[in-house]
Order: sequence, then C-alpha cells, then structure tokens
Amino acid sequence: MKLYEAPSPNARRVHIAMAEKGIELDRVAVDIRGGENLSDEFLAKNPGGRVPVLELDDGTYIGESVSISRYLDAIGEGPMLFGDTPLAQAQIDMWQRRAELNFFLEVAGAFRNITGFFKDRETCVEAWGVVCADRAPKALSMFDAQLEHSEFLAGDQFSVADITLGVGLDFARSVKVVELPELPNIKRWHMQLNARASFSAS
Amino acid sequence: MKLYEAPSPNARRVHIAMAEKGIELDRVAVDIRGGENLSDEFLAKNPGGRVPVLELDDGTYIGESVSISRYLDAIGEGPMLFGDTPLAQAQIDMWQRRAELNFFLEVAGAFRNITGFFKDRETCVEAWGVVCADRAPKALSMFDAQLEHSEFLAGDQFSVADITLGVGLDFARSVKVVELPELPNIKRWHMQLNARASFSAS
Repeated sequence: MKLYEAPSPNARRVHIAMAEKGIELDRVAVDIRGGENLSDEFLAKNPGGRVPVLELDDGTYIGESVSISRYLDAIGEGPMLFGDTPLAQAQIDMWQRRAELNFFLEVAGAFRNITGFFKDRETCVEAWGVVCADRAPKALSMFDAQLEHSEFLAGDQFSVADITLGVGLDFARSVKVVELPELPNIKRWHMQLNARASFSAS
Repeated sequence: MKLYEAPSPNARRVHIAMAEKGIELDRVAVDIRGGENLSDEFLAKNPGGRVPVLELDDGTYIGESVSISRYLDAIGEGPMLFGDTPLAQAQIDMWQRRAELNFFLEVAGAFRNITGFFKDRETCVEAWGVVCADRAPKALSMFDAQLEHSEFLAGDQFSVADITLGVGLDFARSVKVVELPELPNIKRWHMQLNARASFSAS
C-alpha cells in the first residue's frame, strides 16, 4: 500500500493512526504548492484533488484522512480507534464529528481565509476567517467539560476523536490565527496525548 | 428510544435511515426558532445544542445525524447503510464525507450566510455565502462522474452517502440559494432515490 501525501494536519492524522495500529506504508510526496494535486493524473486517484490518498495493492484508492484511518483501523493491530460495539462506534463517531466540525474545520477556515494561504486557487473572505477564529476557541469548552469526567474524548479508550482534536489543537497553535484559552481538562488530556509515541513522533 | 428533532435536512437524514432499517422511534419536537435547543435542559442532552439527538432507553444520548444513523444501521434490519467489509466501510465513509463536506455543508453555508436565517444567534457573512453558493454546484461534477459507472454513490449498494447527497440536493432545491446544473447521471440516480419509500415519504 502507498500513501500519497503532503505535510498537513490531515496527513498527521493518518500518521498517528498508522503508528497506533502498527502499520507502515510507502509514502509518496505530492507537491501541493505546485498544484500537483490538481493534475489529471492525481485527480484520477482522488477526484476531490485532496491529500492524503491511500492506494491499495490492487489499485483501489481511498481518500479522506478519516476514511483512510477507518480502513487502517479495521486491518491493523491493537485496540480499535473507531470502537468495537455499535454504541462505542456511534459515540466515537459523534465526538470525532464534533471535534472536526466545531474545531478542526473552524481552525482551517480561519487559517485559509485570514492568511490567504491558497488564494491562488480559492476565494478568501477575511471576515469569514474572523468568524471561524472566534468560534473555534468557544467550542473548546464543550470538550473540556467532557474531559472533566472522561479520560479520553469518547470515553476511557483513546480513539480517532482524540486524534482529530489533538491534531487540530497543535495546528491551531502552529498557525497562530486562533487564540486558545487554557482549559484544565484539555491541558491534562493534551499532556497524555503527547506522551504517546504516535503523537510525539508525528 | 426517543428522537429529539426539528424539521431540517439533518432530521430527514435520520428519518431515511430509520425507514431503510425498519426502525420506529418516539419523536419529540424541539423548538429551534424559540431557542429550546440552547436551554440548559437540552444542552445536557447535546452540549453542541444541535438536533437531532437520539436518547437510548438507558438514558445515553447520541448526537450528530450521521452518528445516529450509524447506530441505527448497526442495530436495525436489512442491508448495511455504512458497509459490511473494511473496504466498503471506508469507501462509503469517503463518499459520505465528500457529499457532506463538498456539497451538503456548502449549501448550508450558502443558505445561512445569504438569508441570515439564524442571524439572531450567529454572525453571517454574505460574501462567504456567495463563495459557498459558487462551490456547491461545482462539486456536483465529481458525483456525476462517479454515478456514470456506479449505480449508487459508493458502489452497487445504496448507502448513507446517497442519503447525504440526496437530502442535500433536495434541500438546495427548496431553499433556492444555489443554482443547480442538470447532470445526466445525477438525474438518473435521483429518480432512483425518489422511487424508494424511505425518500418519498420523508
């Protein structure tokens, strides 16, 4: 199997899932800044033009970092990142979605619209970036409240929901377009994440 | 089990999943316009303040329409809406995400920011609504190309990806903030969806 990728929070999500599940993949660099992801050759792999993309040995492609991680979770070793009962699967999915929709994508919206990082290929609206930058930190109180009585975001097991929120937080810190409040339970949990080899090495 | 809900595309997604899986639920109306979803009582059910929310018989709550549908899929009857092998699960998840991120949420972004439907509780940026309204129809060509050689979005089985795109399209038609092109394969597929009792009755 091969992973087509570029340095990004989405690639990091897959790298953490790989490390957690004991999976190594050949990695192929895609030049996003040069627009390689918008070439016909790449669009045949992923019509959305996004990275990362996983190529299976039979030539099947899987796009979307969460869907790639879901596949690796099913075929890899160790505890399930997406849950192993209908209830756990639904609750992990719920927290993964909350982390993604209410935080991760808001940070991305703030970053792209305020800095104009991809302004050669998308219309940026700075006022919208400011809305996203305002909403992202507010969403953190929901996660902090959950982490007050729960070791990980979706219960007592580490899951893909922790990957999404943890990577989103580190991304927010690195791009500096969102002011992050200090919240005690998130702080405790984030230290636990950083103690995992999958996080610290990615 | 009880479903707390308000009339919306997200509730319709769950209703279609229920019909496909032969599941009936008690339904409790939540007054979104009056802000009932932002009350302390409701936030205890779903800290994100969103509907629908599923209450299990033991008092556990599941939020997020896709996560609710995932749970109903696992406990209900009939073919799996989220797939039954690791590869099918990953591919359905991928197409569900593409339908949601590239179309459904763009239509919602256009609707909310252009009409100001929730302007009493969120900041609307009309210029961003225009960006969303421009991007949503462009994304449809990716789905049309997939439907040229595939009966349903994620292969030869109806799945949650079809629910998301079908509900998104009907929502776009009803709110009229997005101009929809006529695409032959989407048209064929949409007629097939409307022939399903789950779609036509919801």
